[in-house]
Amino acid sequence: MCVACNHTIHRDRHHFGWNRDFAPALIARPGETILFECLDSSGGQIGAGATADTLASLDFGRINPVSGPVHVEEAEPGDALKVTLRTFHPSGFGWTANIPGFGLVADQFPEPALHLWSYDAASMVPALYGPGGRVPLKPFAGTIGVAPAAPGLQSVVPPRRVGGNMDIRDLSAGVTLYLPVEVDGALFSIGDTHAAQGDGEVCGTAIESRMDVEVTIELVKDARLASPRFTVTEPVTRHLDGAGYEVTTGIGPDLMVAAREAVMRMVDLLAAEHALAPIDAYMLCSVCGDLRISEIVDMPNWVVSFYFPRIVFA
Amino acid sequence: MCVACNHTIHRDRHHFGWNRDFAPALIARPGETILFECLDSSGGQIGAGATADTLASLDFGRINPVSGPVHVEEAEPGDALKVTLRTFHPSGFGWTANIPGFGLVADQFPEPALHLWSYDAASMVPALYGPGGRVPLKPFAGTIGVAPAAPGLQSVVPPRRVGGNMDIRDLSAGVTLYLPVEVDGALFSIGDTHAAQGDGEVCGTAIESRMDVEVTIELVKDARLASPRFTVTEPVTRHLDGAGYEVTTGIGPDLMVAAREAVMRMVDLLAAEHALAPIDAYMLCSVCGDLRISEIVDMPNWVVSFYFPRIVFA
Repeated sequence: MCVACNHTIHRDRHHFGWNRDFAPALIARPGETILFECLDSSGGQIGAGATADTLASLDFGRINPVSGPVHVEEAEPGDALKVTLRTFHPSGFGWTANIPGFGLVADQFPEPALHLWSYDAASMVPALYGPGGRVPLKPFAGTIGVAPAAPGLQSVVPPRRVGGNMDIRDLSAGVTLYLPVEVDGALFSIGDTHAAQGDGEVCGTAIESRMDVEVTIELVKDARLASPRFTVTEPVTRHLDGAGYEVTTGIGPDLMVAAREAVMRMVDLLAAEHALAPIDAYMLCSVCGDLRISEIVDMPNWVVSFYFPRIVFA
Repeated sequence: MCVACNHTIHRDRHHFGWNRDFAPALIARPGETILFECLDSSGGQIGAGATADTLASLDFGRINPVSGPVHVEEAEPGDALKVTLRTFHPSGFGWTANIPGFGLVADQFPEPALHLWSYDAASMVPALYGPGGRVPLKPFAGTIGVAPAAPGLQSVVPPRRVGGNMDIRDLSAGVTLYLPVEVDGALFSIGDTHAAQGDGEVCGTAIESRMDVEVTIELVKDARLASPRFTVTEPVTRHLDGAGYEVTTGIGPDLMVAAREAVMRMVDLLAAEHALAPIDAYMLCSVCGDLRISEIVDMPNWVVSFYFPRIVFA
């Protein structure tokens, strides 16, 4: 329920992939606030009764639906869409999956795995995970974007200059996001809501969770923005940094290899210290651990660090 | 002054590069605490009277001296050295430089530049930068490591499996660091102390600053550690996250290119919003902004984000 919304995009007004020729679900004026009812990234295919076997029968043509698009009056190429994320209304149910072939260390985890989450959508207290784990929650939208200029249907999977599936875990309530507009009307859509995720989303999924989002849309004319940027006026990690971090490193000349090594070393550490199966440690890393580039200048070796919040097992 | 140290490594007991054959400055027992007097990374070449011209005459053979090495009794290959960073004693003077050919976007900043810092080593209140900037301080050691097994002199510049010039900005007081031992006695050294740095150290230097460090060294026998890891039991960013962040992004299939784009977009943003010369914005990014990997799984495009703490201009 939104007390100050001008419009509602209902859950059935979603689309798969991006296309500058999609008919708008709504024509809105700059300054208006819209309630978007979003689906989870499986489009409802993974529900309370799902198992790892469900993953084998997923229809990938129905993955990552986004609600919209909204045609914003007066928006034209060169402008920036200013998107204020006002409030998230989480559903209380979520899932995290290891989908074969997808994820930072997919070669190490070839088998499908699925974890179902139940969390208190009112209190948003940390969600339980296995024996002793408690994962702090912070809802955000994994996919926020506008239509790319390129004609025809564009995959929803990769993020682009116009945003999309960016999976930036700090795109949560209170944030102002600026997106480059490439087509008349911008054609804004949002979805892929997550109850929690770490920087990197290393296993390929977060706590995937259906929720509704209140968004105010404004225009910055002729902004000539090169790529998305955002402003957050509050600290971003205080829900999970209270007990510090365990940190592993990957050191070498390739950032991707170093990132993989840092994550695998954390998987090994968590598995050893908390009696987790490696696949469970990997999925846990994805929902609350952070990939950081500690050093990118000391030629020829860079340091990528993986930060796991100790509060999960405190 | 150290009240509980067993030994002091004086400032003149430093070396350049790593070498398993360097004679130890000290033979210590596991459990002992040592005061290391460290030089700054220029080895004293950049002092209070330095200018950008000083950079042209730097003797790079004297760059990044580290104090030590300490031979740790009973340490042997396969062990881990457990290093507890107890206290930093900063000097109050520091410098940040753009050294031509060095840094994440060296091609964009071909001219030398130097900023000298003066900070209150007792209060450690934020250090002033240009018109209106205040940079929160958090001292740490940029270079901490043990001798690599490879024979002969090894460059100090790249970090390695055994640590070294890792430039991880959270290796500050209270942290426990584990380093893989590759040679008998470990041969531990430390230096390259910094008063502040962001994740990435994007311009190639931090607030380079001479300081002394108290360190306790212990052994974990047969730890079989793949690369450095550390434990920090306190939050790591509360000194600078109070006002949130401005965040720019680089999106694409190459993490290095995306990192460069995210940083250049922040340089442009800071230059536009705070009337900074681009080179000054770049150096400011290096001492307090963070490179994070927001998403590394949404094939084929990854998102690298650059987080600049708003408190600097709050």
